[in-house]
Amino acid sequence: MLLHFPVLDRERRVVTTAITNLDLHDIARSAYTYGLSHLYVVHPIGAQRELAKRVQQHWTVGSGARRIPDRAAPLGALAVVVSMEDAIDEFGGGGPVELWTTSAADAEGATLSFREARTRLAGIGPPVLIAFGTGWGLADSVHAGARCRLEAVRSPRVDGYNHLSVRAAAAITFDRLCGVGETR
Amino acid sequence: MLLHFPVLDRERRVVTTAITNLDLHDIARSAYTYGLSHLYVVHPIGAQRELAKRVQQHWTVGSGARRIPDRAAPLGALAVVVSMEDAIDEFGGGGPVELWTTSAADAEGATLSFREARTRLAGIGPPVLIAFGTGWGLADSVHAGARCRLEAVRSPRVDGYNHLSVRAAAAITFDRLCGVGETR
Repeated sequence: MLLHFPVLDRERRVVTTAITNLDLHDIARSAYTYGLSHLYVVHPIGAQRELAKRVQQHWTVGSGARRIPDRAAPLGALAVVVSMEDAIDEFGGGGPVELWTTSAADAEGATLSFREARTRLAGIGPPVLIAFGTGWGLADSVHAGARCRLEAVRSPRVDGYNHLSVRAAAAITFDRLCGVGETR
Repeated sequence: MLLHFPVLDRERRVVTTAITNLDLHDIARSAYTYGLSHLYVVHPIGAQRELAKRVQQHWTVGSGARRIPDRAAPLGALAVVVSMEDAIDEFGGGGPVELWTTSAADAEGATLSFREARTRLAGIGPPVLIAFGTGWGLADSVHAGARCRLEAVRSPRVDGYNHLSVRAAAAITFDRLCGVGETR
């Protein structure tokens, strides 16, 4: 789930961000490649949702689908919704959903390690919806309402510089949670 | 190193692809976050190199640098060159360079596992330059001239669908090679 509201700007104010076209097919392709069932794109503004749906249609039924048919399936798994609550309702079909949040900064307290998260995804339980924030990350209210907050993807740099795009952070998170093969 | 030539199109013909603006700052941010020293962008066409340099300047000295200063350092590590050979010469300063290639498909023979690659990067040896292809991936000639071909990032899907963007593939590769923390 990619949120454009409520997210932070660089002064940590809660804002609504604009949709970046490339986010949609980039994250949709990563999600589909790693076997995720849906990608929810949350935007409270109707004109922005229409934009997202036009991008989706370009790749699922429009000229993009004829030119690069491989993108139709991932974009077909995209669902454009008004709010996080709508995404949860639609995803869970009214039943329970476990919300996990992500952040570039490790938080105190309820942090779920990638290793533990993999184990939980492989086990039995309600479906898991993972929230990614655009802008400068998810608002505190989203973390507060979540079951867990996933461990941050840390930088190996000595100076701690860590400014991945949400596209890169999502791809790395999917790989850590659902990837196959030995990597360490 | 991000190559726009020689790469493949969807019919596996060798072509030159156009620069995608977002590739530059997205992959530059991922490379910098994971501690890589340079990101070489290879394009044989002068006007395309100029475009790449304008994108770079926007983030290093232009209005982008004032608006989002965090992007200046990664884009400062971007080097725009004519050919892969120029990238190798510039990167190695005339000394030896080990070229590794990447692909979405596992090849027969000389494949380097991510685990072995991590070990080699942690050891002593010539600097390693990792080649990523735009379009439908690197031309065979690039693989043929490389010291190793890195294991493919495999999809966990039963149908094998595996169409990550080069931005996502690069981010995942950097995380597997240079990431910190337990992930499995």
